[in-house]
Amino acid sequence: MFVSDSLNVNAQGHLTVGGADAVTLAQEYGTPLYVMDEMGIRENCRQFKASIDRYYGRGLVCYASKAFCCKEMYRIIKSEGLGIDVVSGGELYTAQGVAFPADRIVFHGNNKTRQELEMALDYGVTRIVVDNLDELAALNQLAGERGVKAGIMFRIKPGIDAHTHSFIQTGQIDSKFGLALETGEAMEAVREAIKLQHIELVGLHCHIGSQIFDIAPFELAAQVMIDFLYRIQSELGYTVKELNLGGGFGVKYLSTDEPAPYDAYMERVSAVVRSQCARLGMAEPFVLIEPGRAIAAPTGVTLYTVGNRKDIPGVRSYLAIDGGMGDNPRYALYQSAYEIVAAAHPLGEKTQQVTVAGKCCESGDLIGEGMALQPVQPGDIVAVLATGAYNYSMSSNYNRIPRPAVVMVRDGQARIAVERESYEDVVRNDR
Amino acid sequence: MFVSDSLNVNAQGHLTVGGADAVTLAQEYGTPLYVMDEMGIRENCRQFKASIDRYYGRGLVCYASKAFCCKEMYRIIKSEGLGIDVVSGGELYTAQGVAFPADRIVFHGNNKTRQELEMALDYGVTRIVVDNLDELAALNQLAGERGVKAGIMFRIKPGIDAHTHSFIQTGQIDSKFGLALETGEAMEAVREAIKLQHIELVGLHCHIGSQIFDIAPFELAAQVMIDFLYRIQSELGYTVKELNLGGGFGVKYLSTDEPAPYDAYMERVSAVVRSQCARLGMAEPFVLIEPGRAIAAPTGVTLYTVGNRKDIPGVRSYLAIDGGMGDNPRYALYQSAYEIVAAAHPLGEKTQQVTVAGKCCESGDLIGEGMALQPVQPGDIVAVLATGAYNYSMSSNYNRIPRPAVVMVRDGQARIAVERESYEDVVRNDR
Repeated sequence: MFVSDSLNVNAQGHLTVGGADAVTLAQEYGTPLYVMDEMGIRENCRQFKASIDRYYGRGLVCYASKAFCCKEMYRIIKSEGLGIDVVSGGELYTAQGVAFPADRIVFHGNNKTRQELEMALDYGVTRIVVDNLDELAALNQLAGERGVKAGIMFRIKPGIDAHTHSFIQTGQIDSKFGLALETGEAMEAVREAIKLQHIELVGLHCHIGSQIFDIAPFELAAQVMIDFLYRIQSELGYTVKELNLGGGFGVKYLSTDEPAPYDAYMERVSAVVRSQCARLGMAEPFVLIEPGRAIAAPTGVTLYTVGNRKDIPGVRSYLAIDGGMGDNPRYALYQSAYEIVAAAHPLGEKTQQVTVAGKCCESGDLIGEGMALQPVQPGDIVAVLATGAYNYSMSSNYNRIPRPAVVMVRDGQARIAVERESYEDVVRNDR
Repeated sequence: MFVSDSLNVNAQGHLTVGGADAVTLAQEYGTPLYVMDEMGIRENCRQFKASIDRYYGRGLVCYASKAFCCKEMYRIIKSEGLGIDVVSGGELYTAQGVAFPADRIVFHGNNKTRQELEMALDYGVTRIVVDNLDELAALNQLAGERGVKAGIMFRIKPGIDAHTHSFIQTGQIDSKFGLALETGEAMEAVREAIKLQHIELVGLHCHIGSQIFDIAPFELAAQVMIDFLYRIQSELGYTVKELNLGGGFGVKYLSTDEPAPYDAYMERVSAVVRSQCARLGMAEPFVLIEPGRAIAAPTGVTLYTVGNRKDIPGVRSYLAIDGGMGDNPRYALYQSAYEIVAAAHPLGEKTQQVTVAGKCCESGDLIGEGMALQPVQPGDIVAVLATGAYNYSMSSNYNRIPRPAVVMVRDGQARIAVERESYEDVVRNDR
């Protein structure tokens, strides 16, 4: 019916998110409002976990926090038995705040600060994804100072182009992330790491991009990485135990989107890993995957109140809402497409095409252009769908507009996960 | 020597901002760090003020806060005798925090909330820029409830294309802002406003775009607006006393940029207003202008610490810094170009071209591509120039990275204007 199973319609014909009436939520908590469906998040976690259990057996699903990070999200992820990938001291601090198990944390980043590396070591993070040789040396030193061995993975560029938006291709050689395979850089780093006293090379990591709809590039990446594990074993006599295949699984933003089922992904990629290992006579590595968007995006919507409407004859109709690029900068950044519905009658005929404009003092502050929508009046609530990822996490206070609350809904019952910012919050650090 | 007069070089050959050594500032306050030159801000305010006094006589320069807003900035603007334009309750709240005079505040916005309108009325803002007829009606009602008359301006689309980036054209008919002249919409709104009991139509406003390098489109806008004032006077017998010509004055981001001198702008635009009024036998209106970027951008730099460097043979060199799209999203949003220098030897030969990458877990997290730079090592401080506008104000906590501090420098002495966010600040609203 909608782009996500988290959405439905109740007896009044209103949109529901996780069973809660969207119109009622807007009345109760105000708009703009991020609403997330807890059971949707849990269901997505379970699907990834079940698929790795079913098709591969030995692995860990790590939620890629940058999609949507707050303490409540981490509590949910933790209780589902998943790990997390964090990309900054701030995300790690959030994880510490809910006592997230350090042995289920993967710490990424192309330019971690010394303070972030120290924080990771002090918390006992067992998988620090090392991006480059400078970082390797710094980490070896810091671990030595602490009398510990730092468990690391290397971020490898497998050289695969996943045919996606150029801004979100990360597995290619032209990337700020990681070490290239084809230049010998990756092998050199491995050679260096296994010599270091305070480093334990646990695994290798790759990430080929974002919002990928095909399985084939993932299969190719798995194959390339297994080949590399084999080369390490045969050339250096060292067994790398873990293989982190990253994330990038496409999600359904639009009714016309058809991402590959995650189950099919795991089935096919597992087959590649297993057959390659069998062919090469290698033990199968422990496998990690890092879905972020795929877990969070479909479970969230953003509710807005409609303000004015401007019909510009022969040009377009603008519909103003009470949020915008401050809470969802993805159209301004990537021209990302979303669907929108009238919360009070989401199954009604979409009789108009509107440009949905935010309230920021900037012409580029749009949620989308040519968006099909049911008839609405000023004061009505509209819902932008599948905003659970990269909306709250990328939000700003541009124009000094406070950031919306995040409400978590479970079986129709709502609670606040992140409180709405007040004006006082916005000026808090002003002297 | 540099793109801005706020920058210089001291005896050690280091970059100075407002007379303070950039390397020392980075050591003292940490990086990333926004540094603003107070006297540069004051000088820009004075230039605009002097030019309006010299060439026109009756007017008010209102700083467009959205470029860079915090209490300390407002204290400076207030003490220079300028007004401010605010675009949200958050900016107005900040202004209230420093007791900014309400009769020097212009309140903009294409979709102000009822609560924001109430806030403006309660604070006694004398110039609320009304965007549309719904807002006019709401404001009349709210003013009536308070037994006051709301002083308003109308935002008019003069239909002028200022030939700039399509995302920042705002004076055209295809805009979410304002009322179109050519369709009769603007005249209709004026006709309506002067009938309303609790509305006093004080002025008209237009804004033709951003980062405009020519004076001609401003002259054209002034002419169109004066013609409209005349039509209102002759058709409705009503004298609109004020004309707000908005902002959009181009600034020098790159050495090759040559924006028109602001003095020349005021000279030529004043001449248009005067000659048009004389020709039409009209009293000259009180004139407002709204420079934002032009006041703030050149006075700021962002200091970063260099992390790792990646030379990808035949492709490019990435230089990682400890900030990125979280503190400066303008490259990701608009591919905006900046200059970068090594803070310790900014006059040295720029021997390399680098892609400056941030530390966010996102491939598009770049400050710029092909940026010329002096030789630098990990740990060195680099300064990105002319970041005083739309950097701090657009900053986010993407990846849960805390936002940098803003340091204000006056004659070599630094003080904190906005404190650096802590990790605790980042999770403050998490339940």
